Amino acid sequence: MPDFTYEIEDIELAQQGLHRINWVRERMPVLGRIKEDFSRTRPFAGMRIGICLHVEAKTGVWMDALTSGGAEVVITGWPGTTQDEVAAALVAEYNVRVFAKRSETTNQHLDYVAKVLSTEPHLIADNGAELHMLAHTNSDFSGAKAKLLGATEETTTGGFRLREDIDEHIFPTLIINDTRAKRIVENRYGVGQSVLDGIMRCSNLLIGGKRVAVIGYGYCGQGIARALRGLGAHVTIVDIEPLTRLEAHLEGYHTAELEQALPVSDIVITVTGRPGALKRDHLALMKDGAVICNAGAFENEIDLPGLRALASEPHQIMPDIQKFKLDNGKIVYLFGRGNSINLSAGDGNPIEIMDLGLALQSLSLAYLATNGQSLPAGPQNVPGEIENEVAVRTLRAWTRS
Amino acid sequence: MPDFTYEIEDIELAQQGLHRINWVRERMPVLGRIKEDFSRTRPFAGMRIGICLHVEAKTGVWMDALTSGGAEVVITGWPGTTQDEVAAALVAEYNVRVFAKRSETTNQHLDYVAKVLSTEPHLIADNGAELHMLAHTNSDFSGAKAKLLGATEETTTGGFRLREDIDEHIFPTLIINDTRAKRIVENRYGVGQSVLDGIMRCSNLLIGGKRVAVIGYGYCGQGIARALRGLGAHVTIVDIEPLTRLEAHLEGYHTAELEQALPVSDIVITVTGRPGALKRDHLALMKDGAVICNAGAFENEIDLPGLRALASEPHQIMPDIQKFKLDNGKIVYLFGRGNSINLSAGDGNPIEIMDLGLALQSLSLAYLATNGQSLPAGPQNVPGEIENEVAVRTLRAWTRS
Amino acid sequence: MPDFTYEIEDIELAQQGLHRINWVRERMPVLGRIKEDFSRTRPFAGMRIGICLHVEAKTGVWMDALTSGGAEVVITGWPGTTQDEVAAALVAEYNVRVFAKRSETTNQHLDYVAKVLSTEPHLIADNGAELHMLAHTNSDFSGAKAKLLGATEETTTGGFRLREDIDEHIFPTLIINDTRAKRIVENRYGVGQSVLDGIMRCSNLLIGGKRVAVIGYGYCGQGIARALRGLGAHVTIVDIEPLTRLEAHLEGYHTAELEQALPVSDIVITVTGRPGALKRDHLALMKDGAVICNAGAFENEIDLPGLRALASEPHQIMPDIQKFKLDNGKIVYLFGRGNSINLSAGDGNPIEIMDLGLALQSLSLAYLATNGQSLPAGPQNVPGEIENEVAVRTLRAWTRS
Amino acid sequence: MPDFTYEIEDIELAQQGLHRINWVRERMPVLGRIKEDFSRTRPFAGMRIGICLHVEAKTGVWMDALTSGGAEVVITGWPGTTQDEVAAALVAEYNVRVFAKRSETTNQHLDYVAKVLSTEPHLIADNGAELHMLAHTNSDFSGAKAKLLGATEETTTGGFRLREDIDEHIFPTLIINDTRAKRIVENRYGVGQSVLDGIMRCSNLLIGGKRVAVIGYGYCGQGIARALRGLGAHVTIVDIEPLTRLEAHLEGYHTAELEQALPVSDIVITVTGRPGALKRDHLALMKDGAVICNAGAFENEIDLPGLRALASEPHQIMPDIQKFKLDNGKIVYLFGRGNSINLSAGDGNPIEIMDLGLALQSLSLAYLATNGQSLPAGPQNVPGEIENEVAVRTLRAWTRS
Repeated sequence: MPDFTYEIEDIELAQQGLHRINWVRERMPVLGRIKEDFSRTRPFAGMRIGICLHVEAKTGVWMDALTSGGAEVVITGWPGTTQDEVAAALVAEYNVRVFAKRSETTNQHLDYVAKVLSTEPHLIADNGAELHMLAHTNSDFSGAKAKLLGATEETTTGGFRLREDIDEHIFPTLIINDTRAKRIVENRYGVGQSVLDGIMRCSNLLIGGKRVAVIGYGYCGQGIARALRGLGAHVTIVDIEPLTRLEAHLEGYHTAELEQALPVSDIVITVTGRPGALKRDHLALMKDGAVICNAGAFENEIDLPGLRALASEPHQIMPDIQKFKLDNGKIVYLFGRGNSINLSAGDGNPIEIMDLGLALQSLSLAYLATNGQSLPAGPQNVPGEIENEVAVRTLRAWTRS
Repeated sequence: MPDFTYEIEDIELAQQGLHRINWVRERMPVLGRIKEDFSRTRPFAGMRIGICLHVEAKTGVWMDALTSGGAEVVITGWPGTTQDEVAAALVAEYNVRVFAKRSETTNQHLDYVAKVLSTEPHLIADNGAELHMLAHTNSDFSGAKAKLLGATEETTTGGFRLREDIDEHIFPTLIINDTRAKRIVENRYGVGQSVLDGIMRCSNLLIGGKRVAVIGYGYCGQGIARALRGLGAHVTIVDIEPLTRLEAHLEGYHTAELEQALPVSDIVITVTGRPGALKRDHLALMKDGAVICNAGAFENEIDLPGLRALASEPHQIMPDIQKFKLDNGKIVYLFGRGNSINLSAGDGNPIEIMDLGLALQSLSLAYLATNGQSLPAGPQNVPGEIENEVAVRTLRAWTRS
Repeated sequence: MPDFTYEIEDIELAQQGLHRINWVRERMPVLGRIKEDFSRTRPFAGMRIGICLHVEAKTGVWMDALTSGGAEVVITGWPGTTQDEVAAALVAEYNVRVFAKRSETTNQHLDYVAKVLSTEPHLIADNGAELHMLAHTNSDFSGAKAKLLGATEETTTGGFRLREDIDEHIFPTLIINDTRAKRIVENRYGVGQSVLDGIMRCSNLLIGGKRVAVIGYGYCGQGIARALRGLGAHVTIVDIEPLTRLEAHLEGYHTAELEQALPVSDIVITVTGRPGALKRDHLALMKDGAVICNAGAFENEIDLPGLRALASEPHQIMPDIQKFKLDNGKIVYLFGRGNSINLSAGDGNPIEIMDLGLALQSLSLAYLATNGQSLPAGPQNVPGEIENEVAVRTLRAWTRS
Repeated sequence: MPDFTYEIEDIELAQQGLHRINWVRERMPVLGRIKEDFSRTRPFAGMRIGICLHVEAKTGVWMDALTSGGAEVVITGWPGTTQDEVAAALVAEYNVRVFAKRSETTNQHLDYVAKVLSTEPHLIADNGAELHMLAHTNSDFSGAKAKLLGATEETTTGGFRLREDIDEHIFPTLIINDTRAKRIVENRYGVGQSVLDGIMRCSNLLIGGKRVAVIGYGYCGQGIARALRGLGAHVTIVDIEPLTRLEAHLEGYHTAELEQALPVSDIVITVTGRPGALKRDHLALMKDGAVICNAGAFENEIDLPGLRALASEPHQIMPDIQKFKLDNGKIVYLFGRGNSINLSAGDGNPIEIMDLGLALQSLSLAYLATNGQSLPAGPQNVPGEIENEVAVRTLRAWTRS
């Protein structure tokens, strides 16, 4: 039993989590090589890293690379996406302090985020700017702030929050999501595949011939549309930018205003990176029997309180499917409770994608450990050399004979 | 508790199975309408139907349609693909006699098939010709043979066995698999999607950029290749027919001899409908770290005894992934123990696909109930009117606004 | 100057035609090898072959193979598709008797067909059953009939005519179009590419984002739909068979009744293999500014007299584009005068496709030369060995390193 | 006969050119609306616009919009891409001063460029920075420089030249190519289609199953690869950036070093935007019978002097195909003499694409006419409002019912 505090569902699941991590490790050669390098160079010797990221098997392999580099790691996750068996394995086998449960409430989540920050980490790896917001807006964490060398932020959504909701930045933050590597490889191809996976896995529905509205045609939306079309779905793209709609139109997708798309769509997927993509009034426009799911980082892309207000008590018809009967008599099904469907109903992005993504995170954190103090405060780009280094390593791994 | 004999894993799982069946029922409008018709017309009044088919949620909805038509139903499944909770629900809630466990051995399977046949059914719905072989080759079942009005056979593999391994047929068999509806809709689009689903679900592997060899480019192989390519896989087609290879070549796939394809493929999928697609000598040619899976009806497309002979004891690294270290030092991973990957690691074909497929089965059985005695013995085509009727009903259901 | 009768546009074009034939010859390795074989085996020694087929460069290379096999060749073409320079080269350089002009009228065409038949050929290679109809229905050609050993027929349309319009067959006809090789390779992939080529070439229109209705989803329709979608067109399939519509729906195409599709389609393509696909009443439903073109063998898929009746005198706005102002005030554009757009506005099927198709024709004619007298009269399949032989040779040519 | 100087092939071709322009005009609704606006607002009243751009039908419609806005227009083109009949129509019907012949030599081209600049235009619309280079490097044109309010530059290649080869800029240049509209709509979808068109049109070659190497995976390369794959080509991407190669790899393309790709490619396409993509040493590595073509703006992407040095005198086997026999005994075919294949062997980008592109040019020039004097000198972005305005207008035109 570990001698540190943690909060997880059940430490007895550790062995099961370890299996999962082991399979994943065999498919993450880039991170494996970085772990070897870190074991020699120890870039994090004497440092603590505070992390907010989905706690699943691939994250587990990453934790191992960071601790091999000398770091002490404290991590929390997101409600509804934690793999409890992986959380257990991290605590029991990797000496990582974990505060995360799949069943955690929003309040518990905020409490866990605070717990991570109160350990006064030297570096932060954030997902959705949760640790950043707390550090910048809550005066209780002045001790933590003093120690912080720098941070990374993983998501589109988090990037928006950093730029829009924080006035004065107190440490440098490398925005992983602003790299081409992240946008193209992870958002387009990784999310594209894993959202398709999540939908099929939780529902066993046919994709071919289904009318699917994808709301938001950024990199994630592009990937999702492409994955669905690859199986014969009839995809309609909804996006507020005219030029983006032109692109989708030329790519062969139908394009429409949201209000036109909803009454004829069998499945509606939100992936705008912004709250309120699907508002209460939109929900009432949906086709009888339609499916709603979210592929953005936050479940607030769908107005869930609005949905509950419009409908009777939902019926949990399958583990990841809730059935709502709306006031207007129509049925709609919500998949994955509105959490990112690829994580809530699947295993998140494919292993190899996260191998690249977490390699980028690893080299960025090592760079901050060395150079953080000389960088200006605030959001900034990952250095081009790091991105290129990761691309070269990944290409080598993926195309070896 | 039911008053008939049955063999299933655990009847306590019934409630869980019922949930699964209920979700599926909402997405099977064609079968729903047929159930209504059958409730009025009672085509199976006083008859017993013996079935060998994968026992999963969609089969459950079908059982309900048949019993609504007056039939008494006895069913067995296939090793490794039974959903035990559905088996429980069928017994507890639908009065279906089930002999099927996910964990059943081959010997148990043969025993269950015999149990079904010994109930002396009037009609048979077969999958892989298991009931047919027993009825035609084992003299113990003369009572059963005397009563049989006719049968259906679902698969390519079963069709081969009927035509090649049985000399004298004693009742008419409608080959569902020889319909265009089955071949195109179920084999190409259904299997295509569900095999992709099974592979992603059990492994979380990236499909984009993976070199995948698909062995066999019939309708199933076409569907699988297309589904994989839709996510960016680099697909190589292996097929013994020159014209089929030309078709694949023009469709944009790489084509190769099996011996050329194996050393450079990350994933190898057998789907020939024939035993021995991947022989012992082939296994030794595989790339280090490669994945093997089968998408054909029978696991004998892969020489599993040969694999075991070549390798040390496999390590069960994930629920549906076994890791083998071959004599030549290479690692290969076997997915789903060689059973059809869409059933062993997924939920089988998409719901709507089976809605069409089981509608075809339903109307074919009803036709045999009335006309079986006047048909010649032996394998034959499903009447065109039935196929057309099902197509019209399905199209109406799928394209309603 | 040749010492035989012929009718072509201008023999002075021969040199230009020769250039065209020479380029094509370099890309027809399968036919090249057959020519070598024929030069040795002389299967047509002392025989005359009467041909009705589009007179273009690839046909020219074929003529050369046939004459190398000892044949005397007489050929006519189709109005609107003859390449006059190739016709000239065939006469001047290859000693082929040609009756064909791009500008020929329907009456001239019928006269040319009669001229070919009146040479009393031993073998016929037909396209659209023109020579067949004349031989079977006109008593003037009894001499010709007595000599005929057998024939081939190239098209879907011709196959229909042979089976439906001729009561008593007097010689065996191998239906090239009923081979899988022809249907898949030439109809799906060849026609798919060449129709796209023809449309782009005569119009310079953007394909991406265009709403295109494809009427008829046989092999040709499949190929056309796929080619258009490959460039981002929004394709709607119209087909009378429910199962065929299901297939298109699952393949990801929109499907609709013709009356629904016409008012929203930018381009309408007929490819049913039947007359009257687009009737006068349909034309009035079309969108203002829409394009009509035909990809079937006969221009009667479109009701051209009906179009002329509905509209003022057409304006020839580009060489292959006519602009009609309909009574209802709308403009429609007819491409290629309603002739097969791939031939009228392009160079017909890609060279390599015709290499395979004409290899099939060559071996079929050689088979008839030897075995014609012992075969039953009437339409029948090309022997499987011939099809396989051609597939093997083509595959070898296309995949050599 | 016009009363101004001009140099074109043959003014008698004017009527033919007018036909071509008229068809095009009917498919350019965005430019049509801009012409109407310009007729009212007269943004170019009293101004002269000097243009270097491919002289073809779409350019003709644009000239009309500019002159309707009050401009006097002087234009030159590029060797090998001028449509002589359009040049004639511009002179005879639109009062545009044209210096362009399809057959012009490089020296003539430079002379024509100088002629345009010596008219002392107030605005420049450039393609490949030809007018810019002359204005900035040749002291003869100080009069012209004094008058110049601003310029646009159309291409990637021209953008490179402006940034790399000019030290001190003397007027503002809006880089059309740096807009997302140009990159995505024109480069990816426009060039993708038109390059495919050009290759098919000049050769009648089959695309399906062809091994094609695309050198350069920018927007143009992406579009070309996608267009080819849509017809079943087996595409290999060659690009020097690791991340770009990862993207192509995930998109499903084979990726390789140039040296690996050449010996196995049937067709090699250069589209890097840089000289020397295919060097002399590379040419010797090519497969026997392979095709070379260029899709970049300048023919110097291929080392044409090197090709001539390696080979005997080329044989002009078809109008746009030259056959070279290399020293090593292999044959290679050069398409379109190395000029951009979509222009040299086709009609350039699809009409609707240029409608958008020239709308962008039009509004940019009008903006410069008003604001040029207050902008800083040197290359800069097109204002976002202009790009958005064009996107909105185009979307409306393309999706109207």
